Amino acid sequence: MNAAPDRVPGPSRPGGRSARVQAAVHRAATELVCELGADRVTMPAVAARAGVNPTTVYRRWGTVAGLLADVALVRHDTDRPPEPTGALDEDLAGYAAWALADFSRPGGIAFFRAEVAPDPDDRRAGLARCLDRCAVRIDALLAKAAERGRVVPTRQQVIDRIIAPLYFRVVFSIPHTDEAYARALAADLLDHPDFRPGRAATG
Amino acid sequence: MNAAPDRVPGPSRPGGRSARVQAAVHRAATELVCELGADRVTMPAVAARAGVNPTTVYRRWGTVAGLLADVALVRHDTDRPPEPTGALDEDLAGYAAWALADFSRPGGIAFFRAEVAPDPDDRRAGLARCLDRCAVRIDALLAKAAERGRVVPTRQQVIDRIIAPLYFRVVFSIPHTDEAYARALAADLLDHPDFRPGRAATG
Repeated sequence: MNAAPDRVPGPSRPGGRSARVQAAVHRAATELVCELGADRVTMPAVAARAGVNPTTVYRRWGTVAGLLADVALVRHDTDRPPEPTGALDEDLAGYAAWALADFSRPGGIAFFRAEVAPDPDDRRAGLARCLDRCAVRIDALLAKAAERGRVVPTRQQVIDRIIAPLYFRVVFSIPHTDEAYARALAADLLDHPDFRPGRAATG
Repeated sequence: MNAAPDRVPGPSRPGGRSARVQAAVHRAATELVCELGADRVTMPAVAARAGVNPTTVYRRWGTVAGLLADVALVRHDTDRPPEPTGALDEDLAGYAAWALADFSRPGGIAFFRAEVAPDPDDRRAGLARCLDRCAVRIDALLAKAAERGRVVPTRQQVIDRIIAPLYFRVVFSIPHTDEAYARALAADLLDHPDFRPGRAATG
């Protein structure tokens, strides 16, 4: 459950009515974002699609932006990238493939944006949360490989060389942006004398 | 004048009333995008800020999306990247610095998006136009250096390694995204044995 406790009406028992309402509303919001685009989704339309009273949706989520941010949070918590193993090349390629799949699935970019800016008046807060979460995962992956003695790229290099081009390519629907492309971006980043396997970490 | 001739009322003489209206409306739209964000700009607000009758604005530009796309087109035609000289390192660094300045100026990202998708129902058309225009400029820069015998990166490498990270960093307000950073992205792309100066082009 991602909603703050004081915003959850009804029973808090997992699997209860509250959880069913959340699941139905999240599913309806996702479908409508895919069908109409995030800009055209309204709270009454989500309520109608979910078969839920609009008052319930307004009371629990407040605004469309708040609802999409909640969907994004739940997605982010339930759909995680592969656990890093310490094998840098495969971990980074797997992370790139996962990030592309995350952006590419229905509504992916809309939810990524919503997560970054759940509230237009509090953009920095959402941004900081999102970057923190991305950073934690990238850092964990790099730390695991570094423990094994690999010289690893920086978090910023992973963002510039893998995340940013995948984001740009999905946003602008550039053809041939597939899993092989994502993995190649990871391989390309590591195709540098500094990162060759067997090179001992220094400093 | 970027508006289609059949949509321009009044005199077509450059410097005439029509041009003054266009300039005032474009300036008002830019200011409001910066102050409110593109999602909150309305045609009546633009008209009021520009001191123009709302009917004129609706008749000439139709929708906010159409107006922002027109502003983007004019910006794109009047604010061009530096002419390539054939010196690859400086040309690419200069292009990167220009692209960052273009994204970073007030409303830059909003107008870039509007240009890519001037009409939500015709996203592909705007996208194709924008990528074509970017591609033409990048290709010209690379061709000029290739004429001088340099082995040059591909257009796609320039997009993935320079344009995409700058776009991502501006969209998500990542700190320290300045001209030096943009130039370093260009230098980093060319920091590969394939692209060292003096290496003869093959094939």
